Amino acid sequence: MNKYTFSLYIQSEMEKETEQIQRKDLIADWQSLMRTFIRPEDDASRSTLIKYMEQILFGLNDFLKKHVGITEEISLKELSEKFTESRINKNPEKKLAQVITDLIENIAPHAVNVASPYFVGHMTSAIPFFMVHLKTIAAALNQNVVKLETSKVVSIVEKQVLAKIHRLIYGKSEEFYQEHVQNAQTALGCFTEGGTLANATALWVARNALFPPKNGFNGIEKEGLNAAYRAYDTTRCVLFVSKLGHYSFKKAAGLLGIGNQNIIEIDMDENNRIHIECLRKTIKEIAPKSGKTRIMAIIGIAGATETGTVDPFGKLAEICAENNAYFHVDAAWGGPTLMSEKYRHLLGGIELADSVTIDGHKQFYMPMSCGMVYFKSPTIMDNIAYHASYINRPGSVDLGIKSIAGSREASSLILDNALKIMGTQGYALLIEHGIETTREFAQEISRRPDFQLVTRPELNILTYRICPESMQKKLLQADAAEKRTMNDRLNRINTRVQRKQREAGKSFVSRTTLRFGKDPRDNMVVLRAVIMSPLTSIEILKDILDEQEELFKRL
Amino acid sequence: MNKYTFSLYIQSEMEKETEQIQRKDLIADWQSLMRTFIRPEDDASRSTLIKYMEQILFGLNDFLKKHVGITEEISLKELSEKFTESRINKNPEKKLAQVITDLIENIAPHAVNVASPYFVGHMTSAIPFFMVHLKTIAAALNQNVVKLETSKVVSIVEKQVLAKIHRLIYGKSEEFYQEHVQNAQTALGCFTEGGTLANATALWVARNALFPPKNGFNGIEKEGLNAAYRAYDTTRCVLFVSKLGHYSFKKAAGLLGIGNQNIIEIDMDENNRIHIECLRKTIKEIAPKSGKTRIMAIIGIAGATETGTVDPFGKLAEICAENNAYFHVDAAWGGPTLMSEKYRHLLGGIELADSVTIDGHKQFYMPMSCGMVYFKSPTIMDNIAYHASYINRPGSVDLGIKSIAGSREASSLILDNALKIMGTQGYALLIEHGIETTREFAQEISRRPDFQLVTRPELNILTYRICPESMQKKLLQADAAEKRTMNDRLNRINTRVQRKQREAGKSFVSRTTLRFGKDPRDNMVVLRAVIMSPLTSIEILKDILDEQEELFKRL
Repeated sequence: MNKYTFSLYIQSEMEKETEQIQRKDLIADWQSLMRTFIRPEDDASRSTLIKYMEQILFGLNDFLKKHVGITEEISLKELSEKFTESRINKNPEKKLAQVITDLIENIAPHAVNVASPYFVGHMTSAIPFFMVHLKTIAAALNQNVVKLETSKVVSIVEKQVLAKIHRLIYGKSEEFYQEHVQNAQTALGCFTEGGTLANATALWVARNALFPPKNGFNGIEKEGLNAAYRAYDTTRCVLFVSKLGHYSFKKAAGLLGIGNQNIIEIDMDENNRIHIECLRKTIKEIAPKSGKTRIMAIIGIAGATETGTVDPFGKLAEICAENNAYFHVDAAWGGPTLMSEKYRHLLGGIELADSVTIDGHKQFYMPMSCGMVYFKSPTIMDNIAYHASYINRPGSVDLGIKSIAGSREASSLILDNALKIMGTQGYALLIEHGIETTREFAQEISRRPDFQLVTRPELNILTYRICPESMQKKLLQADAAEKRTMNDRLNRINTRVQRKQREAGKSFVSRTTLRFGKDPRDNMVVLRAVIMSPLTSIEILKDILDEQEELFKRL
Repeated sequence: MNKYTFSLYIQSEMEKETEQIQRKDLIADWQSLMRTFIRPEDDASRSTLIKYMEQILFGLNDFLKKHVGITEEISLKELSEKFTESRINKNPEKKLAQVITDLIENIAPHAVNVASPYFVGHMTSAIPFFMVHLKTIAAALNQNVVKLETSKVVSIVEKQVLAKIHRLIYGKSEEFYQEHVQNAQTALGCFTEGGTLANATALWVARNALFPPKNGFNGIEKEGLNAAYRAYDTTRCVLFVSKLGHYSFKKAAGLLGIGNQNIIEIDMDENNRIHIECLRKTIKEIAPKSGKTRIMAIIGIAGATETGTVDPFGKLAEICAENNAYFHVDAAWGGPTLMSEKYRHLLGGIELADSVTIDGHKQFYMPMSCGMVYFKSPTIMDNIAYHASYINRPGSVDLGIKSIAGSREASSLILDNALKIMGTQGYALLIEHGIETTREFAQEISRRPDFQLVTRPELNILTYRICPESMQKKLLQADAAEKRTMNDRLNRINTRVQRKQREAGKSFVSRTTLRFGKDPRDNMVVLRAVIMSPLTSIEILKDILDEQEELFKRL
């Protein structure tokens, strides 16, 4: 271990080498406690602190190399039995050095190696190492962007970053941004903990904009939903999104008092985009213009969680205009595609949306967790403004005035500097690698007789399943009942292969269930690949398919 | 600068010393991009990365030493004019080394030195340096605790930490914790971005528990608030909290569709605790048991934001029981007081609450940002459970099932290890220092003729104002009109002194407006001190008073 241990709790042992610290030796005392608050002046202590950072950066790296796999042998049950103590020790149990060693030796090996290029199952991947530095900077500065008095320049940086991403999405004029970039009265968007709260923020704004104050009514935020429905002669609000919509919309509708059954799920067309004619028809049935059911929002998706597909925003915007409906786009996944000149057309029409969600911890490759939501109108967030007498005074630059959260870390500092280090071009390279590798992967799947491509990639996500050629042919000729029997068998096969591959721990592809039609017997279990790591090559993907073939044959 | 620059974007310059990088030289290319995703093998690159961490840890430290003050000379307007560019550069603008240097030289000096012992104005202070290491570990592992597949052991650790803090609050039996600590079906609480979302989560649970499914009604979460009110013959829901309640309750009531005007604010007694008789009376008037107005929750405060005072939980619990009302305690600030054997009695009765909010980034001294909410019943969070087919499958350990957010970083890993390094005793020392120093400070304020203690400290927050002895005497004898005139003058004095002190940049005490009675002319502007840093001594507080006296005399 380290020659110089910056001892926290061992009295007068600062200069002593301590190989093994017994629990009983650790006592919390004021002097050593104080030292943890003052960055050390002496070289020995400084070098120890740096040494710890080295262990964190590279000790964890060694773990990554040793455990290419996703999980290890130990079962979940066995693992959880080690974490059942529910008392907090009165005296310190460990020093920082031991904590770091334990994390590297005992925690990291049982964590999930999301950084592995063989981990293509979820929207989490390797991140550039400088992101860890940027996160450390945010922690060391420890600013709280809820208010100017605990963040000052960082609130100003945040407003600037919000303008940058707003411009990426909406591309308004230079004058527009000059007016709003540092305007204390207006807001182009806000940071949230993640996409779920970004979507909730958008729908919160949409709800309040739909039931504004009027004669004898103080607005829905003050009076509540019941009074709002009465004031506007409404009995029900509905929201439309395709069946591929993220579950956060249901959560938001539940949270906001709308009722999650009022999220109306629309079927997809053959390209897994929201079925426009079906949407028009459903609107007419459920929310005719003369009725008491009002449309709160129509939601488009830029990169569906399960299939990566993108809805036709131009057409959705038309329908919204016809129905005077709020238009939200969930680009939590796909948003950063806008940085690629080559592929930004895939998100054409996104600038027509009233609001857009983008996640920082997805394709901006930021560490967990960072979401954002942007609004076309710089004043629409006034619908959710809150003030308090000790902070967030009206007219101040306090970012907490228009935010679902209160105290927040400065994620904007991380994103701003990542954009400076990468440029749009750096991000574009990552985006393009993902899209193009996924296309190659689709071809490879189609080429192999044991596999069937289920959803073609539009961005960098695809789904497929194990379905031998002979069965594919039979399925084409089978009647409905036969199809269901075969489908059921295939679902079981794919579930088992996915699980076996995950347990083997070399690679990880996720599994989801796509719903085709209303009958659950038509649901299809598919394997889902998300290709975002630049380290994931077509060769690695071929390896993954080889392994799945092997596992299938051995079933 | 560094001898070996781990170049991100300069092709084939890995071995070259680069003093000054011109913007035009920076081009994003695939090879260098790839390198940022692979932790470097060669010693030179490794040592550069470590060097950066050293700059972050100690370069920022130097800033802290140079700028004891809170803000610098430059005005907000001048500052914001430097951050108006809204275009993202196509090519990289800076390398990591430059980013770090710029942050240290150009951003940090304009940030707020929340770590200064002279910064006693907000609930943000210096944090132990090991917290930065722990945050870095969480970022380097980059686990996403929304689901087991991207976090595994970290989800298990999170369940354990939740049990530890639950036990600190509720102190249930060992059997209880053995049953629930790793139980995939139950939840003792959850982590949130901060206290605001923790409070919102508690009220979300309370709302849904009040309108559960019954014959012909699917529950409020599915059918919405309007249908729920109809099903339960309700016209209005109300929540009770003292006037010192955090503004997040209004926000939550607005968000949840209850309407924020239905947060009924109750006056305080002479000790700034919720006035129990007043509460009883108001309940009878607003929500008599036979009526259509239902009580959604009664809220107690453990450490009011403005005054640090604590409500009488035993009595509140009684009133809740009488009215069959949900009982929530906002202990965002005061919760960690439970770790001090000497002062935990100040929060007596907290274990009677149905739910309790505690912030990690406040008196657990964690970096921004971390909130938590705990529930007495391990099944009550079922009221807000959400599932999706690709994650959060029913019965899984996926923590995202019962959570207002989706993807989340592993704050639990930070808290768990902080508890191991500190022990309850380490935290108790900090808590006790805060409470006792604040008491000394109150004595000092009372001793000085120019000051008036407005709210006596119960925990480690107090409010006071500049009010010369002669005026204090006059106020005692004045009639209502005279009182208001004098009060108005004092408000202006205190506002000016607080602003001048903040602008001088040596120390920072915050300012808030306490409401006494219904007439805004009785509102009192007070200076508010929050004493949480172990580096804040009574001598420093005396300095702060000296400066205020000086500023007052020079007005």
